[in-house]
Amino acid sequence: MTKTRIGIVGYGNLGRGVEAAITQNEDMELVAVFTRRDPAGVTIATEGVKVDHVDNAESYKDAIDVMILCGGSATDLPEQVPHFAQWFNTVDSFDTHAKIPAFFEAADTVAAKNDTVAVISVGWDPGLFSLNRLLGETVLPVGHTYTFWGDGLSQGHSDAVRRVNGVKNAVQYTLPIQDAVDRVRSGENPELTTREKHARECFVVVEEGADEAAITKEIVEMPNYFADYDTTVHFISEEEFNANHTGMPHGGFVIRSGESGAGDKQILEFSLKLGSNPMFTSSVLVAYARAAHKLAVKKDFGAKTVFDIPYGLLSPKSPADLRKELL
Amino acid sequence: MTKTRIGIVGYGNLGRGVEAAITQNEDMELVAVFTRRDPAGVTIATEGVKVDHVDNAESYKDAIDVMILCGGSATDLPEQVPHFAQWFNTVDSFDTHAKIPAFFEAADTVAAKNDTVAVISVGWDPGLFSLNRLLGETVLPVGHTYTFWGDGLSQGHSDAVRRVNGVKNAVQYTLPIQDAVDRVRSGENPELTTREKHARECFVVVEEGADEAAITKEIVEMPNYFADYDTTVHFISEEEFNANHTGMPHGGFVIRSGESGAGDKQILEFSLKLGSNPMFTSSVLVAYARAAHKLAVKKDFGAKTVFDIPYGLLSPKSPADLRKELL
Repeated sequence: MTKTRIGIVGYGNLGRGVEAAITQNEDMELVAVFTRRDPAGVTIATEGVKVDHVDNAESYKDAIDVMILCGGSATDLPEQVPHFAQWFNTVDSFDTHAKIPAFFEAADTVAAKNDTVAVISVGWDPGLFSLNRLLGETVLPVGHTYTFWGDGLSQGHSDAVRRVNGVKNAVQYTLPIQDAVDRVRSGENPELTTREKHARECFVVVEEGADEAAITKEIVEMPNYFADYDTTVHFISEEEFNANHTGMPHGGFVIRSGESGAGDKQILEFSLKLGSNPMFTSSVLVAYARAAHKLAVKKDFGAKTVFDIPYGLLSPKSPADLRKELL
Repeated sequence: MTKTRIGIVGYGNLGRGVEAAITQNEDMELVAVFTRRDPAGVTIATEGVKVDHVDNAESYKDAIDVMILCGGSATDLPEQVPHFAQWFNTVDSFDTHAKIPAFFEAADTVAAKNDTVAVISVGWDPGLFSLNRLLGETVLPVGHTYTFWGDGLSQGHSDAVRRVNGVKNAVQYTLPIQDAVDRVRSGENPELTTREKHARECFVVVEEGADEAAITKEIVEMPNYFADYDTTVHFISEEEFNANHTGMPHGGFVIRSGESGAGDKQILEFSLKLGSNPMFTSSVLVAYARAAHKLAVKKDFGAKTVFDIPYGLLSPKSPADLRKELL
């Protein structure tokens, strides 16, 4: 078996997740991890795999089939994708929804010019959830689509709480409201406000002597982040925090509730219950790296999204085996 | 907007469902319905659309973009697909899992030779469920996949009950067993026997003077159909049957329960709750007819399955709009 040779750019949660996911796929091989730090100071989990500086990546042009870019969406990926797509097929998890069209164009320009494939915005949302939103509205054109997130840790909201004066550490969980979910699943097609769909729950460790009432008020009234939601704030000890709140669970569901042509109610649902958000995202990135490699072999170059890639390309199995075993 | 021009072959439940689904898609147009019966005796729902004999279909070669074949898998489709794929792009719902590889080869030979596209085995199982089985095992290569069906009416099992002596009318519902579903959703990865996964429930109207005990015994002991399941038989009146058991609900779920690379539990689920099984299958057929047309325009000819077709091709929206609105 010829293996798909993978490079990882960035060794945070996502990079470590990609490294771990590769070990679950016999047809994939990790060639090198690239970092902006001093490579000598970065120890990775896989023995015998090189850690190199990002500035040396170009020299791996013939040794790596797909570069998985594990940077953040705010500043890393808008710079990294056009840079690495000059030499490599790439996969990334760019997730700033509003900026996807411009990000796609930038990636497409470079990839098309350099005969590479750049698969953008891979993961579960954007990603698998997007696919199911598309499927729902095409298969049931008359209907409503609902996306619920959670129970899950929101990184952005946790950061916002941690910035409040007197907060030592904090996590924020987004919770879908069960009554709303039940109404949607029943086919009722309710109109739901932001407050009716999700609640927010914060677990906060305070600095000694901090004013808990003031902290609660500042959190629940915080515009954009909390003001539009029912928010509960729990104050806990550092021990409890470390024991119960260091994981990164997440998930959610996409529901399409519609009517087919003669008026029958039809409901389609896709859901994820994730023990670890970054580890799952990494697993999705690795499956799409396989597809990126196959597209490049077929000379189907340019930027792609999950909407452009048939599921068959995600699998190590041949089309004939897929038809026989899974159809 | 240039519309995709559709022909329907066969005017049973599925054909009527396709006709109804087309009315929900502004970019689709029904050109004609083809029947093996005397066309004069077939009245269809849509005004102004022609009903013609299947033997005249060839003359519509330039007027129809995609022919949706709505016959049965046992004898109709194995004959119809190679026949119509000579002249038309086709979509069918062939669902005899074991015969799919041979069916695909036969369709591919004709379609490749005649520059047409034949999309085979479209619907929800095979179809959307197959896609989610594939997705589950590629994204979570370490794990178990479970498919549950129901609550839903099984046509084959209903037919089997109706063949029992003394039975005037009957339906059979397949029911997933909640305890098994709960165990799977919890991530327990249980080994489940046939009997532990699904139960069967029959609603039977008997001929006057029939022996109910004998009928029950014959049903529950019937090999292949019922012997491996816990089966409940209810005897009801013809009135109750007509009031409550003439719909064709179905559904089910595909669950992938696995572990990502560092041992975190991850669960993916796709589920359908269908008020009408044939109406939903028809809606899926129509979405894939749109894709078949787009593939033909791109000259990507030959037989295809759902595994080969990116979700983007199912939508009437442009790739740019999909990225902007749904990703």
